[in-house]
Amino acid sequence: MSITQAQIAEIVARVRARRPLVHHITNYVTVNGVANITLCMGALPVMAQAKEEVEEMVESAGALVLNLGTLWPEQVEAMILAGRRANQLGIPIILDPVGAGATKMRTESALRLLDELSITVVRGNAAEMAVLAGAEAGAEATIKGVESIGDCADPAGIATKLARQRHCVAAVTGPVDVVSDETRCVRVANGHAMMGRVTGTGCMATAAIGACTAVEPDFVLATAAALAAYGLSGERAAARSRGPGTFQVQLFDAVAELNAQDLLSGVRVREEHTSV
Amino acid sequence: MSITQAQIAEIVARVRARRPLVHHITNYVTVNGVANITLCMGALPVMAQAKEEVEEMVESAGALVLNLGTLWPEQVEAMILAGRRANQLGIPIILDPVGAGATKMRTESALRLLDELSITVVRGNAAEMAVLAGAEAGAEATIKGVESIGDCADPAGIATKLARQRHCVAAVTGPVDVVSDETRCVRVANGHAMMGRVTGTGCMATAAIGACTAVEPDFVLATAAALAAYGLSGERAAARSRGPGTFQVQLFDAVAELNAQDLLSGVRVREEHTSV
Amino acid sequence: MSITQAQIAEIVARVRARRPLVHHITNYVTVNGVANITLCMGALPVMAQAKEEVEEMVESAGALVLNLGTLWPEQVEAMILAGRRANQLGIPIILDPVGAGATKMRTESALRLLDELSITVVRGNAAEMAVLAGAEAGAEATIKGVESIGDCADPAGIATKLARQRHCVAAVTGPVDVVSDETRCVRVANGHAMMGRVTGTGCMATAAIGACTAVEPDFVLATAAALAAYGLSGERAAARSRGPGTFQVQLFDAVAELNAQDLLSGVRVREEHTSV
Repeated sequence: MSITQAQIAEIVARVRARRPLVHHITNYVTVNGVANITLCMGALPVMAQAKEEVEEMVESAGALVLNLGTLWPEQVEAMILAGRRANQLGIPIILDPVGAGATKMRTESALRLLDELSITVVRGNAAEMAVLAGAEAGAEATIKGVESIGDCADPAGIATKLARQRHCVAAVTGPVDVVSDETRCVRVANGHAMMGRVTGTGCMATAAIGACTAVEPDFVLATAAALAAYGLSGERAAARSRGPGTFQVQLFDAVAELNAQDLLSGVRVREEHTSV
Repeated sequence: MSITQAQIAEIVARVRARRPLVHHITNYVTVNGVANITLCMGALPVMAQAKEEVEEMVESAGALVLNLGTLWPEQVEAMILAGRRANQLGIPIILDPVGAGATKMRTESALRLLDELSITVVRGNAAEMAVLAGAEAGAEATIKGVESIGDCADPAGIATKLARQRHCVAAVTGPVDVVSDETRCVRVANGHAMMGRVTGTGCMATAAIGACTAVEPDFVLATAAALAAYGLSGERAAARSRGPGTFQVQLFDAVAELNAQDLLSGVRVREEHTSV
Repeated sequence: MSITQAQIAEIVARVRARRPLVHHITNYVTVNGVANITLCMGALPVMAQAKEEVEEMVESAGALVLNLGTLWPEQVEAMILAGRRANQLGIPIILDPVGAGATKMRTESALRLLDELSITVVRGNAAEMAVLAGAEAGAEATIKGVESIGDCADPAGIATKLARQRHCVAAVTGPVDVVSDETRCVRVANGHAMMGRVTGTGCMATAAIGACTAVEPDFVLATAAALAAYGLSGERAAARSRGPGTFQVQLFDAVAELNAQDLLSGVRVREEHTSV
């Protein structure tokens, strides 16, 4: 039951055929890129966060993406409202706990969303994910603002721990991404160092996961497919870029033009057995 | 009294000579592109939405642009305050009812702005405009988040209906844009399919209309001029683009470098008689 | 004690070696560019403005940047809270008074921040800075929305006046930037006219100052270094651009790739004696 390149290519094709709506409640730093990556993946983005409309908006969506990048109390309330409705309707929820560990408010808000909602996938960097899994800050990796600093010795351990605590899929992204649920563990080796030099590449990875979970109910597979397709696009964009400015532009083109042939030849995923 | 290419070229030149201030109360998804298109058209953008300052800010403006893309209740109140002051001073107001029909809050907020303010131009996609003109959702076109899905059989009918109900100019944008008031109807055949693959192209069209209405009191003409110039820029940008990322960048260059010669040879507008 | 190109090159290298965290409380129009310029300078940006977290977030930062571009009352309160904590800890605060003079709210908010906090550097255009220094609006330069219109006869006079009133560094940016404290005055002649044709270039200049003040306690020197490095990047980006869209992209690449050799040969700074 290893994940194949063909499965990943098929999921990306399915996003493009079905054009699911992805409802984002997200930060205002990277929101434009998040909307554009959603479009480039083949899905339709909608941004709505007024408490008065989030429950109605999410009813039309194939996935709900919650991103804590510039959270404020009312926004967290809107996330709870939208998330409850999504849970009632069986719509997958993707959580991006931006900056968990950097402030109490961020850590507590992320934990509250995990407590009060049934979250489908959590994606973060090693420091954020370690904090959510209960590590002492700095034990596994250090958060500096919203960046994870230093090497993480065991991203798979963090991902599996959080997945088992929360009965969700946990994706720790970094040089190699790790996607785990309670029993499976997939490594995705696509991506490029340039992705660390532009703001919003983590948020956009989360958006890509939203697009794929909207069409594929095996959420480990959907998450790995999104990260592989997005990471491969990053490799291809970097080959056409001079620096972070041109890279950001080329990244949108690369995601939009990614085809089955590219995915069949370029995706690097490996599924491992985990000890239960 | 058909609209000529020379008239359109002259209006664009006038924007660049006068540099009118355009006050935007807008969404945070596409706000950077909206500001930059305003600049590329030759006008000066200012974004201000605190209730404490919108009335004072709009006094200096040549046009006020209200965009519902990420509305929240306080923002709608600020729109009402700024709009009333604009109406007192005879400053044109452009409304972009993003996502009308997608949630009750969006539909009701757009209708409230149309009820309480004298709106000069409304610009939206077929689904949004049909909802405002009183069509049952889905009767003319379907809204999916903030996108109009499916072909619209009669955009001119929708535009004319809304224009007559509200005594305003109504612009339904799509493969061919239709601009109507109570008696006139102009079709603008400029534009490119790539504009549907990037977020914010609708919002930026509305911004371009704001720039032109600030210098031209024939609002049908001003709106058609803006959509023609912007659409032609889209065609030229697409010819220099690989995908949606490069297109977005080239679009700003194309709007900024558009000159009278380009407009005289490239604009495709046609005025029709409408039955009164 | 004139500033040398070698000093400037060394400060830029120090930012890249230390990677200081820069905490921004800023507007939603240009926030993505602000984050990316911070990264391209070699620092780490974090955007946080909930009152519940700003004091905790700023504790990890090397500098705090306050930008009034789309201010609202709660945001100003968050700025005060973060600023007080920064002052307690000796963390430099950079103020960008976007649109001071355009509305009472903007002028009063900027003055309140200057009254209640110990601001390290204020950077603005001639009109904004003249208003803060107490000039009658229009006496020195005219504000139109957030743009300074017309030539300013004496930017050095404005900068020195404000610096002496507020015991801070004052930077008036324009064709030639002027950086003054109570006794020194430095002119930075780097930059390009294209920077006036894209939104956010002022905000990004302020972000670059934030990055440099985080590593260099001579704040006149840090501010001049930031403006010289950023302005030189603008020159280099303009040489590779067709218009404002490509310029914006090339600007990020140019800042990121700027090296000591470029700075040693390209920086144009001159320190003057001021009468005390």
